Amino acid sequence: MSESVINYIHTLGRAARSASRELARAPIAQKNQALAAIGSALNAARDTLLTANAKDMTQGLANGLDSALLDRLELNQARIDEMIEGLRQVAALPEPVGAIRDMRYLPSGIQVGKMRVPLGVIGIIYESRPNVTIDAASLCLKSGNAAILRGGSEAIHSNQFIAACIAQGLREAGLPEAAVQLVQTTDRAAVGALIQMAEFVDVIVPRGGKSLIARISDEAKVPVIKHLDGICHVYIDQAADIDKAIKIADNAKTQRFSPCNTMETLLVHQTIAADVLVPLADIYRQKRVELRGCAATCALLGEDIKAATEEDWQSEYNAPILSIRIVTSLDEAIDHINHYGSQHTDAIVTENLCHARRFLTEVDSSSVMVNASTRFADGFEYGLGAEIGISTDKLHARGPVGLEGLTSEKYIVLGDGHIRG
Amino acid sequence: MSESVINYIHTLGRAARSASRELARAPIAQKNQALAAIGSALNAARDTLLTANAKDMTQGLANGLDSALLDRLELNQARIDEMIEGLRQVAALPEPVGAIRDMRYLPSGIQVGKMRVPLGVIGIIYESRPNVTIDAASLCLKSGNAAILRGGSEAIHSNQFIAACIAQGLREAGLPEAAVQLVQTTDRAAVGALIQMAEFVDVIVPRGGKSLIARISDEAKVPVIKHLDGICHVYIDQAADIDKAIKIADNAKTQRFSPCNTMETLLVHQTIAADVLVPLADIYRQKRVELRGCAATCALLGEDIKAATEEDWQSEYNAPILSIRIVTSLDEAIDHINHYGSQHTDAIVTENLCHARRFLTEVDSSSVMVNASTRFADGFEYGLGAEIGISTDKLHARGPVGLEGLTSEKYIVLGDGHIRG
Repeated sequence: MSESVINYIHTLGRAARSASRELARAPIAQKNQALAAIGSALNAARDTLLTANAKDMTQGLANGLDSALLDRLELNQARIDEMIEGLRQVAALPEPVGAIRDMRYLPSGIQVGKMRVPLGVIGIIYESRPNVTIDAASLCLKSGNAAILRGGSEAIHSNQFIAACIAQGLREAGLPEAAVQLVQTTDRAAVGALIQMAEFVDVIVPRGGKSLIARISDEAKVPVIKHLDGICHVYIDQAADIDKAIKIADNAKTQRFSPCNTMETLLVHQTIAADVLVPLADIYRQKRVELRGCAATCALLGEDIKAATEEDWQSEYNAPILSIRIVTSLDEAIDHINHYGSQHTDAIVTENLCHARRFLTEVDSSSVMVNASTRFADGFEYGLGAEIGISTDKLHARGPVGLEGLTSEKYIVLGDGHIRG
Repeated sequence: MSESVINYIHTLGRAARSASRELARAPIAQKNQALAAIGSALNAARDTLLTANAKDMTQGLANGLDSALLDRLELNQARIDEMIEGLRQVAALPEPVGAIRDMRYLPSGIQVGKMRVPLGVIGIIYESRPNVTIDAASLCLKSGNAAILRGGSEAIHSNQFIAACIAQGLREAGLPEAAVQLVQTTDRAAVGALIQMAEFVDVIVPRGGKSLIARISDEAKVPVIKHLDGICHVYIDQAADIDKAIKIADNAKTQRFSPCNTMETLLVHQTIAADVLVPLADIYRQKRVELRGCAATCALLGEDIKAATEEDWQSEYNAPILSIRIVTSLDEAIDHINHYGSQHTDAIVTENLCHARRFLTEVDSSSVMVNASTRFADGFEYGLGAEIGISTDKLHARGPVGLEGLTSEKYIVLGDGHIRG
């Protein structure tokens, strides 16, 4: 790894650590003032931003980026509106830092409780979308954390311009510019240096494709809040309401095919299978969803259903493909999910309270649902007001991560000259 | 690394993962029954346990272990009493698993809240004390986690016998024996395999010397809850009550010299320095504490005070040595702590509310105290009922880690056929 890149990243790290101390004690009003000033700076510079973005788009076209990537890269007036609105929404969220809870007296006479505090310095590594630069910066700022942002090299001109607007807003609010720093080099070694710099970075949040995230978690010396697979299940219990079951299984698969919270495997109890799968198969066929089933499913739905293989149960299709398995019990459904699932989001459809209770307790996923579509697993739908990502980790934060996931709690102790005997 | 050791550890991991599913759904009464049965098994086998321990002691003596290590290794009737009492206390703690909080309706009509859940499989790596085998097993069991325990090789006979008692208790309560497994080999490669086995282990808790912990965090692929340094500070503010300041600074240093929450550096505001440091120096001299001071401290306390070096401010002595620095402001004290401290435990002595408020907010440590001795930083003193260790990490758990630190929270969502629009 090049010495100069490492030195550069360490310089960013040292400045971020120092800025994080100032941010941690910044009053709410000052942080919100910075968010508003960043919005004003963006608004005042729309044309220049679009010019910078056009440069990225031209290079992207010349480099043969595919149309999906170009779409994510592109900015227009509506997307700038969304960025400014996002800043306003984050400013309006309740202050996450400094809340004290559960203060209580202990037998020794001391009072002990917990205070919510920023994590410190957060490194965010993402791909082409320039709007993530604003999203990530605003969430880190609001939660009192310094941010080091490493966007995709294809968006470098857009990101540099957005970073300049952020710096201007910070300056106007009297906050250190190092509170939000963009990695200005597109050298890939910068990522390696960032994720190993444990003395200056407290957590890494990678956002992007599975291979990027897997590589980062594998090489990082800094803790990572990550999202790997989204192999989500809906289980239609024998006590399901058939109309609700059909509505939910349809929505969970077909409302959108690519998101991580889309259902990939449908489990159905054998006693209800004919009643729900026959009409569901019609719906899926109409919506051009390819079905792959277990032997019982194939027997029920006929010849045009492919046989599901072991690999299907382990697949996140992100596409109009669905695997279906008929099970003989709630236990079998729970075992299937805990074995093949990715601990992301899984739902049961049932009117039976005890089945719902068991499913909620025993399914080991970051979101477990009863009678609702897996598509609801999302920070906005959960009322977090914003989302930095969805964690499939078990430590610290599980599921959609909002401002609270970017904070931690320390103990505070109050005494009046108390000593330990 | 030897193939057979890796295979052995993977066998333990697979069994632990499977047992963790059963534990996660085990009723409170069954877990408490197992804890009681383990206590009975230990009680019934005291003599055999002491025989196994005597074998470890004999080998330890023959291998030239030092007296402190031999003391930690030794079991006697009183220590067996403590182990049994510990099991009883953990059984009496409130159930940490399954609690649901903050369920609320969202605009879509779904209800969203959080449920506390076990982490899954916890690997605990520790050194000579055989009683840790019981402590760790009981906390993991109570919190619904499967445990893989790797004790020091010098305690292998004691630990094997204790593990047999644990297995008997689990069996009697109808829980899987793989809920608590002791690594039966003293091959050091077992540790390496355990901390890399991310598919079967959710978190590693190392307990022991700094070099062991540093090596484990460096090599682990599994998240680690760890405790590195304990460089704790007391800051005596200009608005301190002098009697309280002297009492606290005495207790924080001299109540015991070796614990991680013992004060290593004393900071004093210049306007109060003469009033507190002169009597304090007398106390420390009587208690044979070596003092190392900044220039102003040396000028105040006289010739027998050594000059503190940069290294002193960074030192965890765990010994009767104290570094002292006179500061000119609260800001200087906070900056010193955030720069040289280890984010463990730091205290201010002051009668001034605004100084206390700033110290609590701005000192970035896992425990921040006002008018209390740093020696209180402890799971029992904080009312956690038990402690697996003290975390100086920022993610997941900071400070003393009790049952709650061995759990996480998942989202639960309740609907009535709700789909996303």
